[in-house]
Amino acid sequence: MTAASRSGLPSLAVVGATGAVGTVMCELLSARKNVWGEIRLLSSPRSAGKKVYCRGEELTVQELSESTLAGVDVAMFDVPDEVSAEWAPRAAALGAVAVDNSAAFRMDRDVPLVVPEINPEQIRNRPKGIIANANCTTLTMIVAIAPLHREYGLRELVVASYQAVSGAGQVGVDTLHDQLTKIAGDRVLGSRSGNVRQAIGDDLGPFPAPLALNVVPWAGSLKDAGWSSEELKLRNESRKILGLPDLKVSATCVRVPVVTGHSVAVHAVFGSEVTADGAREALRNAPSVILVDDPAAGEFPMPIDAVGTDPSWVGRIRRSMDDPRALDLFVTGDNLRKGAALNTAQIAELVAAELTAK
Amino acid sequence: MTAASRSGLPSLAVVGATGAVGTVMCELLSARKNVWGEIRLLSSPRSAGKKVYCRGEELTVQELSESTLAGVDVAMFDVPDEVSAEWAPRAAALGAVAVDNSAAFRMDRDVPLVVPEINPEQIRNRPKGIIANANCTTLTMIVAIAPLHREYGLRELVVASYQAVSGAGQVGVDTLHDQLTKIAGDRVLGSRSGNVRQAIGDDLGPFPAPLALNVVPWAGSLKDAGWSSEELKLRNESRKILGLPDLKVSATCVRVPVVTGHSVAVHAVFGSEVTADGAREALRNAPSVILVDDPAAGEFPMPIDAVGTDPSWVGRIRRSMDDPRALDLFVTGDNLRKGAALNTAQIAELVAAELTAK
Repeated sequence: MTAASRSGLPSLAVVGATGAVGTVMCELLSARKNVWGEIRLLSSPRSAGKKVYCRGEELTVQELSESTLAGVDVAMFDVPDEVSAEWAPRAAALGAVAVDNSAAFRMDRDVPLVVPEINPEQIRNRPKGIIANANCTTLTMIVAIAPLHREYGLRELVVASYQAVSGAGQVGVDTLHDQLTKIAGDRVLGSRSGNVRQAIGDDLGPFPAPLALNVVPWAGSLKDAGWSSEELKLRNESRKILGLPDLKVSATCVRVPVVTGHSVAVHAVFGSEVTADGAREALRNAPSVILVDDPAAGEFPMPIDAVGTDPSWVGRIRRSMDDPRALDLFVTGDNLRKGAALNTAQIAELVAAELTAK
Repeated sequence: MTAASRSGLPSLAVVGATGAVGTVMCELLSARKNVWGEIRLLSSPRSAGKKVYCRGEELTVQELSESTLAGVDVAMFDVPDEVSAEWAPRAAALGAVAVDNSAAFRMDRDVPLVVPEINPEQIRNRPKGIIANANCTTLTMIVAIAPLHREYGLRELVVASYQAVSGAGQVGVDTLHDQLTKIAGDRVLGSRSGNVRQAIGDDLGPFPAPLALNVVPWAGSLKDAGWSSEELKLRNESRKILGLPDLKVSATCVRVPVVTGHSVAVHAVFGSEVTADGAREALRNAPSVILVDDPAAGEFPMPIDAVGTDPSWVGRIRRSMDDPRALDLFVTGDNLRKGAALNTAQIAELVAAELTAK
């Protein structure tokens, strides 16, 4: 028994502590109310041995293994799908509650998909000892859609996304910066006289095309009938989180040259009539939402303002001119915070409260 | 009577010849089949006297006036709304057919709004002697939507745009390049640790917020109930061009850090059932459309490929999973070509053919 667990506070492992999301997680753990005893930072062998500040202490990152997971009460996974698929069940078998930020278990019927502002009660339905965290684009959007659903009864979502490169990890961020450095100062690039593909060369990083001076209507992998995995996640996860198995969802996911901050343009159709003012009122009072809706004053949600903040920024709220039951709106959120690390931390804190209360 | 008009070919004035669209117009007039006698390049006093190559000749830009418009058969206007509002009727009074690329006359019942691939017959319905060219975003989209409408009967459009800075003119392009030069090499900008607003300062050009490393959900001016002028143009112009006064249209217009090439994510609902293959077939055979729809091979429409080309690039064609009458697709086109200069040139050429046939 460690000193920390003797203190009565649950112990935590952060798996993938040195990645893009894991790094934000360590910042959040340092800034949020402390509910944890011992914190262990775990990673692949490549990053083991690194020193990371977390909660005011310098911690040495250890290699992920059964022995480094042993005795942990809650294990967060900010790692690729295949690593979660293998290790989240192992952590659960060792007695931890696994909170997984990958896509490996999100659609598993025996794994709840939890957004603490929407369905916190679901954390107890975890027969596998695993709780899933939703996709970053879904999370950004759903925090703003849920209060409108409660007010008006959601029937359909048509979504177009504007996704930041950090959604593809630190390598995505590095790739965009490399490309921007290459094109800076060449003032014909992007016009009919300047070929961006030639200027960028093969330095595409994790993307199928250059991002600098471009938008790329593709994110994820190819699934049935031309849909991308990212588009299906938005559909399936929205349905599961809201408990609306028949919700209509059509999404087009597009990567844009933004570092951090996913945005979505949403056309939402409800079961009852809406008003723009009523929608604004519902959002003004909603948790984890900031309403920024004054176009005349230049106030609308944008990635450069939302980055580094916790809530989803919502604005451009308009009632459809053709359908009194439909709203159009624009939402931006930090894909590494509420879109990933923050929601995972919130879920883990709910579990910590449950464990502490026992 | 000038030498050119004696040749039997109609004479042309390009008003606004030195602007972003006018410059492309001079290139197009040099590259397309020559149907013109004399060509006069006109501008504000500020640009008068400049030398511009057009159709292999060096022409001196003259100041716009009644005397420089006199004797012209067709006058194209690539100028701000208020200049067109004043001068297009004057050109018509002097005997010219005015082809106007501004928004001044688009919704005038006595002015046809013409896309030559869709409603060329409308050029003859011009009681005011004025023919209007549509907004750049509308044009990019409508070329791809019209063939689908003919096949399936369009009922509703939900649109999210990804609009390039050149839609705001050369000052928009300069602003983005200035901003990209400022941020290049600062690899924390756009992240939670780097403030883009501070780095860019007040250099916002024609935009309400920085465009570098950002997306701005605003284009145009504020109209009723929170809608922007750009969003209403997409709605009203689509209805007029397609002859569908009851078409449902909800649009969210967003500016992105792209130099040239407007894109739209479209959710289109039809009166009859659709298939993705049927839609692809209709688009493969449509004029002014390139089908690029093979995500597995990295083929989808993107601004860096569409810039400098004539057609609308269409791809990411998917049938809605919830509605067999709905399609989702992505369209990109050069906003200065088909979105502006090219469509204006095509209309003018239809008028030239009519005048020549007389």
